[in-house]
Amino acid sequence: MIYLDNSATTKPYPEVLDTLRTVSEHYFANPSSLHSLGGKSEMLLTRSREQAASLLHIDPSEIVFTSGGTEGNNLAIKGAAFAYRNRGKHLITTAIEHASAGHAFEQLETLGFEVTYLPVNSEGRISFEQFKKAYREDTILVSIMHVNNEVGTIQPVEEIGAFLKDKPKTVFHVDQVQGFAKVPLQLQTSGIDLCTISGHKFHGPKGTGLLYVRKGTLLSPLFAGGGQEQERRSGTENLPGICGMVKALRLTLEHQQEGINHLKRLQKKLFDGLKNIDNASVHTPEQLSAAHIVNVSLLGIKAEVLVHALEKNEIYVSTKSACSSKENGASGILVAMGVSPDEAEQAIRISMAYETTEQEIDVFLSTLAETVNQLKIVMR
Amino acid sequence: MIYLDNSATTKPYPEVLDTLRTVSEHYFANPSSLHSLGGKSEMLLTRSREQAASLLHIDPSEIVFTSGGTEGNNLAIKGAAFAYRNRGKHLITTAIEHASAGHAFEQLETLGFEVTYLPVNSEGRISFEQFKKAYREDTILVSIMHVNNEVGTIQPVEEIGAFLKDKPKTVFHVDQVQGFAKVPLQLQTSGIDLCTISGHKFHGPKGTGLLYVRKGTLLSPLFAGGGQEQERRSGTENLPGICGMVKALRLTLEHQQEGINHLKRLQKKLFDGLKNIDNASVHTPEQLSAAHIVNVSLLGIKAEVLVHALEKNEIYVSTKSACSSKENGASGILVAMGVSPDEAEQAIRISMAYETTEQEIDVFLSTLAETVNQLKIVMR
Ligand SMILES: Cc1ncc(COP(=O)(O)O)c(C=O)c1O
Ligand SMILES: Cc1ncc(COP(=O)(O)O)c(C=O)c1O
Repeated sequence: MIYLDNSATTKPYPEVLDTLRTVSEHYFANPSSLHSLGGKSEMLLTRSREQAASLLHIDPSEIVFTSGGTEGNNLAIKGAAFAYRNRGKHLITTAIEHASAGHAFEQLETLGFEVTYLPVNSEGRISFEQFKKAYREDTILVSIMHVNNEVGTIQPVEEIGAFLKDKPKTVFHVDQVQGFAKVPLQLQTSGIDLCTISGHKFHGPKGTGLLYVRKGTLLSPLFAGGGQEQERRSGTENLPGICGMVKALRLTLEHQQEGINHLKRLQKKLFDGLKNIDNASVHTPEQLSAAHIVNVSLLGIKAEVLVHALEKNEIYVSTKSACSSKENGASGILVAMGVSPDEAEQAIRISMAYETTEQEIDVFLSTLAETVNQLKIVMR
Repeated sequence: MIYLDNSATTKPYPEVLDTLRTVSEHYFANPSSLHSLGGKSEMLLTRSREQAASLLHIDPSEIVFTSGGTEGNNLAIKGAAFAYRNRGKHLITTAIEHASAGHAFEQLETLGFEVTYLPVNSEGRISFEQFKKAYREDTILVSIMHVNNEVGTIQPVEEIGAFLKDKPKTVFHVDQVQGFAKVPLQLQTSGIDLCTISGHKFHGPKGTGLLYVRKGTLLSPLFAGGGQEQERRSGTENLPGICGMVKALRLTLEHQQEGINHLKRLQKKLFDGLKNIDNASVHTPEQLSAAHIVNVSLLGIKAEVLVHALEKNEIYVSTKSACSSKENGASGILVAMGVSPDEAEQAIRISMAYETTEQEIDVFLSTLAETVNQLKIVMR
């Protein structure tokens, strides 16, 4: 099997599954229970939080454990908008966010907030200049994805963070779900107040995530209740999931530099190989993109047909983003980049993990070339 | 170890942990991915949903998988209030809800909703008559817990459901987190529109839950995004957790009748045994309470002291509800029942599971009697 759909989700590390089991069995008590079994669970929770904080170079109090990227984005965006609604009503985001951010903004529009959606250029990137023009005195929240999930384009979050650093009335949220461990980003020095990551995108358990909340940043909680996570996310903690995610965090960050270098080599191989397939039109920019994603249209072949042809060879790639893959219509970001709707419907996404091998990419490229040729003959 | 804190959380069934592992390994793909690995995951998700629906005698489309009871309560309460806010602004609940419902209502008050909190009598029960008096033309939501988590009192949700059946403009939510598998409740015929259950309270995985949403009931989602769970709860599905919870659901419901009968015998033993401890003042009513909970004050002994004394014998009970156990002050429900603050601070909660044995209850009762005697001597 050649699994090239790692932006949709990843296979959990075996060590993560071991952690899930051990913690479920031996630390099943509620960390909030007063007795010593509860105390043991609470200590493990504290240690996990400290370990995650040290890996991310942040303070343990700045971590909110969540159920995933969608929760993180909704909590950050709606939580900040509600917490600061008396300061202003203007919000800035982009036209190409993941649905879990984009639709949260649409909900806020129905509740009286005003949202500016920044457009992107032909590489899928917003412009810092346009951002500055959109910025207002009453902008209470800016939310920008770090790496786009379909095309891989890196957004200028560092420039925007630097600009917002001396704007204490504006909260800056970054959706780092695709960027995490693929494109390094310093949280403490970046002007970022809120940052979302999702466990299952880096070989952690499904149903886990982490929201970075800079000290002093307020959130109106989505989950009101028992007051866990410093009142920012109530609910009995998913301790096995948290420990499993922190394990994945550590295993991933330990290999981050070599992992990224490896992905860059594989991505270069893909860019080069695709140049030899004559109806391949690559949408991922070679500069300023995350190294794990390549988005490409095979002109004349519907993405869905290609996905199913490749799976016959046990090669798994995707169309668009996973969560919208069953909706009709072309990808939002490709259309926003100026790609024609027809060409956009012919786009597949190849997304790799540190574990992807050079040989797998070779096999993928030769199988793709063959498959495209066969499909061209069939369609003629 | 004698674990009597099952209302805080339960130990997962070994079979549930096996399911977690198998699904994590072999069905790791995203159910939304178009390729056949995604299709395999999607099929498993569909089958799990169908199995849960059949166990609960509801329709598969009426299930929303969540991350737990706190999410379920917040989604039901805030989701319904927002969805129906143009119909009216009046909401009814009780003074003794779990914090995940109670604090959700407080958030709604700050957003312009008007909330009636029904009081309870000395047994911790609201009155149907008072409910009817509080009910208004513009009541859009009624939310009542099924079984109280600290005292075990059963609320008249069936009467209220029958009353609300022909009030199509009012949504009826029941927090069944403590009642599930302890006090049978028919969802389809009960007039209930929304019902929250939590996986880790019946030996399922942490971080899992289920919200029943009757056909036609609208919710404004807490998690906007990719549109999973029929737009009611977006986010990549936690498939291992879902399958693990459904496994626990089946294992639990298969033994429901004998389990409840067994708990009733153990509860009777506790009631009888506590009568022989002269400073024991039982707060759980013998009639109309769930069989797994007994709440009792040992007069003159602070609950915290007793919890720690018992844990020396590897017996684990709790003070108040787990999530508020570290807050100062007496339990809300005991005070609402008219118990003095002093006596309320002396209350412990014994909460059992189907697996609790008669012998464990015998050991608990004799250890309690001894411990209470020792503590009385120390304190004299
Ligand atoms: C950029 C981005 N943000 C958010 C999400 C949502 O994360 P999750 O699937 O953990 O809910 C995803 C993945 O689906 C994503 O790619
Ligand atoms: C009655 C009741 N409702 C809701 C909850 C919250 O459930 P969870 O811990 O799964 O968030 C609990 C348990 O803590 C409870 O006892």
